[in-house]
Amino acid sequence: MSGGWLKVVGLGPGPEDWLTPEARRDLAEATDLVGYFPYVDRVPPGPQVRHASDNRVELDRARFALDLAAGGRRVAVVSGGDPGIFAMAAAIFEALDDPTAPAAWHAVPLAVDPGVSAMQAAAARAGAPLGHDFCAISLSDNLKPWDVVLKRLRLAAEADFVIALYNPISRARPWQLGAAFDALRDLRAPETPIVLGRAVGRPDEALTVTTLGAVEPSQADMRTLVIIGASHTRLVPRADGGTPWVYTPRHYRG
Amino acid sequence: MSGGWLKVVGLGPGPEDWLTPEARRDLAEATDLVGYFPYVDRVPPGPQVRHASDNRVELDRARFALDLAAGGRRVAVVSGGDPGIFAMAAAIFEALDDPTAPAAWHAVPLAVDPGVSAMQAAAARAGAPLGHDFCAISLSDNLKPWDVVLKRLRLAAEADFVIALYNPISRARPWQLGAAFDALRDLRAPETPIVLGRAVGRPDEALTVTTLGAVEPSQADMRTLVIIGASHTRLVPRADGGTPWVYTPRHYRG
Repeated sequence: MSGGWLKVVGLGPGPEDWLTPEARRDLAEATDLVGYFPYVDRVPPGPQVRHASDNRVELDRARFALDLAAGGRRVAVVSGGDPGIFAMAAAIFEALDDPTAPAAWHAVPLAVDPGVSAMQAAAARAGAPLGHDFCAISLSDNLKPWDVVLKRLRLAAEADFVIALYNPISRARPWQLGAAFDALRDLRAPETPIVLGRAVGRPDEALTVTTLGAVEPSQADMRTLVIIGASHTRLVPRADGGTPWVYTPRHYRG
Repeated sequence: MSGGWLKVVGLGPGPEDWLTPEARRDLAEATDLVGYFPYVDRVPPGPQVRHASDNRVELDRARFALDLAAGGRRVAVVSGGDPGIFAMAAAIFEALDDPTAPAAWHAVPLAVDPGVSAMQAAAARAGAPLGHDFCAISLSDNLKPWDVVLKRLRLAAEADFVIALYNPISRARPWQLGAAFDALRDLRAPETPIVLGRAVGRPDEALTVTTLGAVEPSQADMRTLVIIGASHTRLVPRADGGTPWVYTPRHYRG
């Protein structure tokens, strides 16, 4: 069958207001939606067949989507945020890169629709904490050894990057965020600003600004994006007396 | 005067297709547009007063915008990409954080509209090169010493981050990109994939995939976003025989 395609579509952090026109159009033109169920649920009702699956089955989901598209379906694989940042786009290419991948998968027209990622949403609400050199690290040790995570945190601190942490904590990974804060406390000042952006863009959004000295892992959950300031990240009071703005100046004196 | 506001609006990398509904609405509701002239020019014609300025006057532009908003105007400060990533949001907070900033500036209602940044657009076109831990570094040494840039590149290579380079080259900074490639050649294999995404999303968009061993600085210009793969970044052939896909797997064996 021909006419099938696969697009990996970034839904952004949640609200319609942050969904790009490209993503909206591709969702509307799809015959099938494939993804982790909270993301599939976020797509407005329509005639598309919905294939929602649980978390942590990304590679199965990628293979299923490629099969559907190779069979002539127009498949939108949906991701929260940007599918290229700790999300489904890499899983699609991993499936394609398998030597046993059917030739029909390689013939599927494929595209990635970028979107606003969680760190950008949290940063926008907080001010401009990512205003200078930064890194993004997934704290999950499901797919890489924990000592690699620790090594990267230490090198990122030495480089004085702002650090955005994805997947900071979950029921299955309860201690990693505390261990990450402890490792960074040896390398950065206790006054270092910390931004906790929980579910930014969703109705239950919450923004917390605290310090490396005071932050507790229990202040984050699996829907939280954590940003750890660099040595020159600063606070500015808000006019309304609320949570202060956090920004990292563009200039750096070393 | 009351009723003024200031929004720092991300236009995304260029096409209407990547402009968020939030950004579109705020541009339409603004009375004044402030920004670097190519970004102001990108906003569709309308009744807004346009205040376009040259590059590298970000702080003057920020102060001007805060003055306008404090005077009751609805001001959209426009940035390409995401204003929070190497763009205008940090400059606004720097202006506010100056001890001589008028109290009226602090009273201005302020918001940041995130957008798709250049690294995300280049990554989407190339596949999923940012699919694992990564960092973003501005190569400009206008605002930080060059030895800080070099130190960060070396630590990023040691951490095995994918590296996105903003502001890689310009007429005023002709040698820095070559020096960065040379530094990385001592630390990463010659086969390391390199993505050069030039003006992605614009009519003159171009995507190049090459290697660290082969890349020449002359292949980039000031509108190019450079992505340097990690040790496990891989290529996948495209069905049409074109530029191969580049992706970084989610798993990492160390």
